[in-house]
Amino acid sequence: MTTQIAQQDALSRETPVNIDVAVQAVEDVMMEIVNSRVDVLRDASHHILGAGGKRIRPRLLMLCYLALGGTDVKFAAPPAAAVELMHTASVVHDDINDHGVLRRGRPSVNAKWGRTFALLTGDFLFTSVYQLMSPYSELNKILADAATALVEGETLQAAAVKNNEFTREAYARIIALKTAALFRAAGEMGARLADANEKFVEAMSSAAYNIGLAFQIVDDILDIVGDEEQLGKTSGIDIAQGRGFVSATESASSLEVQNGASADDVIDNVKRKLLEGNRLEEARAQAKGLIDMAVRQIGILPESAAKDELIALAQMVINRDH
Amino acid sequence: MTTQIAQQDALSRETPVNIDVAVQAVEDVMMEIVNSRVDVLRDASHHILGAGGKRIRPRLLMLCYLALGGTDVKFAAPPAAAVELMHTASVVHDDINDHGVLRRGRPSVNAKWGRTFALLTGDFLFTSVYQLMSPYSELNKILADAATALVEGETLQAAAVKNNEFTREAYARIIALKTAALFRAAGEMGARLADANEKFVEAMSSAAYNIGLAFQIVDDILDIVGDEEQLGKTSGIDIAQGRGFVSATESASSLEVQNGASADDVIDNVKRKLLEGNRLEEARAQAKGLIDMAVRQIGILPESAAKDELIALAQMVINRDH
Repeated sequence: MTTQIAQQDALSRETPVNIDVAVQAVEDVMMEIVNSRVDVLRDASHHILGAGGKRIRPRLLMLCYLALGGTDVKFAAPPAAAVELMHTASVVHDDINDHGVLRRGRPSVNAKWGRTFALLTGDFLFTSVYQLMSPYSELNKILADAATALVEGETLQAAAVKNNEFTREAYARIIALKTAALFRAAGEMGARLADANEKFVEAMSSAAYNIGLAFQIVDDILDIVGDEEQLGKTSGIDIAQGRGFVSATESASSLEVQNGASADDVIDNVKRKLLEGNRLEEARAQAKGLIDMAVRQIGILPESAAKDELIALAQMVINRDH
Repeated sequence: MTTQIAQQDALSRETPVNIDVAVQAVEDVMMEIVNSRVDVLRDASHHILGAGGKRIRPRLLMLCYLALGGTDVKFAAPPAAAVELMHTASVVHDDINDHGVLRRGRPSVNAKWGRTFALLTGDFLFTSVYQLMSPYSELNKILADAATALVEGETLQAAAVKNNEFTREAYARIIALKTAALFRAAGEMGARLADANEKFVEAMSSAAYNIGLAFQIVDDILDIVGDEEQLGKTSGIDIAQGRGFVSATESASSLEVQNGASADDVIDNVKRKLLEGNRLEEARAQAKGLIDMAVRQIGILPESAAKDELIALAQMVINRDH
């Protein structure tokens, strides 16, 4: 009897599709769609995508899909690829505005190909998103809304920096729009692709949203304390530009760039100030609370290997050091 | 008997929907979708859209729709608005790369809001396209392909200028991708929205494509001979950047910017060279040939006021002086 239950349990925990196979399918779709007839678009896209990146958004989508019984990896891979390309497009454009020279351990597209081609590569990644999504009529509104939210969040951030109005409230609104909305879309699309009922769709959307908020908070913390080489992107940009968690918790005036002081001096100064207090710990606690909530939301799923992976992904968000 | 025929003829030439009403519906959709919750995106979008522009692409779509029996203006207006917003997004990004300061008789978004916000406004117009199109599952591939072609054409152009390889062949490929593809999409979508049969869809796609090619050739001619004030955008940019019709017909070396010479000097010099020969006349003849072909293709449509307007639109492309 006990043996029988154990066997059933093992069976129910098995995910019919190998997760690595699912992740690889997304990779293949991404590399294929950016195979432009124009050399520089293809090369620059492969450059930024080939550098790796965490792939957390498409992984989240695929795991939600698999955990809710989805088995057709080829069907779910294009929307997952679209989510990652949307994120990548915003990263390429972000590096233009921030003058970021290092991204994912490689020169940014901006640094390697110059501004004009970086702008067009970002646009191309965007039109690739649109192409990938064109057969998925019912999902298009979900991703279109998230894409708009992302751009709105980036704009609010730039405006807050410019106007020196980077309050805690502004920060909360910005990370919800620029990061959590796309995570939410990944969770919702994964669930809808699996034809899940509304209870599960709502749970996965909300869990993904919370993971997205936590992810951005941790990203901002790492931007302060992380080692540049380990992060693989130009560190301290967020601080130099007076945005991110730091500026949301510090008073804006104390972050102002002193005339004559280099960006590095400013960053060092801010870091020292931050490490004096307990502000980073507050942010870490907030991120942990969000992940705890997400894990509870994921908890309503039937047991499976994909569910376990989903929980592991959520935990990784707060345990990562890059 | 004669009177009866005349009456029938008058009836058949009537278009059930007023064309001005259709054009206004597109305007309303555009202004509504760019009503972002983020001030700068809303203001910058209204700024560039409110400056007018010829609206030739959405007008083309609506006229194809009406000429093929379409009557539901509210149904056809969002894809028409999406086509115009896609064009506008590329214009806003183009003005970043070209440092264009005047557009449609107003300061460019780049000049008024700076590069960061111009880049994000272009991105936002793009996500607005995606939002508008999300309910039109069968049309999404058409516009997604055209959007990708547009970005590819802009990139080929930038690469040709950079590598000093602006041949006639390159020019032909560039204008097909960056301009004619989106015109073609407008024609095809207009026809498909009207549920036209494939013969008409093909004719309208092809006519729109030819109109697009002619439009770009004339645009490049006007960039040489046009008066800046009349054009309402920074004239001579295309020449200063060594692209467009001029550089496609001149040998590349004769267009090289001399060290120390100002952009204005270069443009003046190129203009003088061009007006000496008959090269502009060749280009004008080519544009006229394309419009003649488009008019013949439009000729297969049943008689209607919309058909007459479509022919007038095609003729306007070669007769315009701005």
